[in-house]
Amino acid sequence: MKYSNSIRPLYLQIQDDIKNSINSGKFSHGEKIPTETQLQKMFNVSRVTVRKAINGLVDNGVLIRQQGIGTFVNYKKVNRKIEYVRGFTDSCIENGLTPKTILLDKEIITPTPEIKRQLKLADGEQAIWIRRKRLANEKPIMLENNYFSQKRFAFLLNENLENSLYHLLGKKYNIFPDNPGKTTLELCVSDIKLAKIMEINIGVPFFYMETEISDQNKILIHVGHQYYLGEYYKFDI
Amino acid sequence: MKYSNSIRPLYLQIQDDIKNSINSGKFSHGEKIPTETQLQKMFNVSRVTVRKAINGLVDNGVLIRQQGIGTFVNYKKVNRKIEYVRGFTDSCIENGLTPKTILLDKEIITPTPEIKRQLKLADGEQAIWIRRKRLANEKPIMLENNYFSQKRFAFLLNENLENSLYHLLGKKYNIFPDNPGKTTLELCVSDIKLAKIMEINIGVPFFYMETEISDQNKILIHVGHQYYLGEYYKFDI
Repeated sequence: MKYSNSIRPLYLQIQDDIKNSINSGKFSHGEKIPTETQLQKMFNVSRVTVRKAINGLVDNGVLIRQQGIGTFVNYKKVNRKIEYVRGFTDSCIENGLTPKTILLDKEIITPTPEIKRQLKLADGEQAIWIRRKRLANEKPIMLENNYFSQKRFAFLLNENLENSLYHLLGKKYNIFPDNPGKTTLELCVSDIKLAKIMEINIGVPFFYMETEISDQNKILIHVGHQYYLGEYYKFDI
Repeated sequence: MKYSNSIRPLYLQIQDDIKNSINSGKFSHGEKIPTETQLQKMFNVSRVTVRKAINGLVDNGVLIRQQGIGTFVNYKKVNRKIEYVRGFTDSCIENGLTPKTILLDKEIITPTPEIKRQLKLADGEQAIWIRRKRLANEKPIMLENNYFSQKRFAFLLNENLENSLYHLLGKKYNIFPDNPGKTTLELCVSDIKLAKIMEINIGVPFFYMETEISDQNKILIHVGHQYYLGEYYKFDI
């Protein structure tokens, strides 16, 4: 390839070419791109030009550089607003991604002291634990642990939980999630258990969110302890 | 040590002992605690009891377990609320930590297209870039890149910037940061540059925040591109 006959600067032409390769699917998200030496030969340009092109794409978040490993096509981030309660399903669809839900657990449990306090359960009252793996374009990006009062939400055990829970609650039970209550965001890295479930390596960074979602009458629906794969998420707060 | 003469369950006594050691400073934050075998000998109890004690402390966030490396005393997280604009200095003090600021850069720059757009600068207008390393109890936990309009904030170049910027703006210039505007939170890991500045390893997870802070008259004060050391932060959102 010879680029030097155009008036557009060479490094911008290289950037255009790489972006086109990503958009056309020639390079997929998460895929390693050719090395600087390979790009130099492909485009018949100097190393300085290649580096300038790559640095620009890294700065823009199109590519990500991993020290000593290589440069990769970055993932498309799910932009999740948390001022309004939007479920995973709707967030995905708004971002042009195909959502999928895998139900992992659906059980009546004796709540831990923390869950008991968060759900404001009386002594002896039980909770329902629903754990779901959520995928976008077939890639697991979120692990959801939701806890409900068993007294109020026992009906969930008989429902199909592999679609939007919020759509189900709204359409069938007239329970509409309202603005979230107390919500905290922390950072953790995958341990062996999380890695296995999410089909990734150990040590990968995740957002860890604890949240309390109430309905239109300000009555608590559920407490959530959620893990969001860091690379895929950007929270508008 | 012999614990079995008390009526308090053994594993809770061990937990008390470990918590006391942390509070008294015998074990510092981030320090590796003795192995299960060592604890078994120290407390003269079964491995099952030691494990129960440790698991409880890991669940409570007092300790953190790193696969294949050991169990460590967790850090005290800075609980940073972002509904209200609170500077680093105030957040630290409210959390019982001693803040310190190191000024790294203070320069007039030609803004990047992104900064130009965020600061709503006219063509040719310049920006001020202030980069500061922020420490809590002498540990670097935040790297701050703040961008200001050069036209309005040139006076900052002559100020001492190693204390609270918000206190300075309020007391001396009657400019009070109000609620933040558009704010996004993402996750990244330290590359070689960030690692060097923050005196940590490569690959350590950070929160990356972009924010726009306006004053009491809704006029933009600055744009911030901040890195928060993940392990130290918990955002209330």
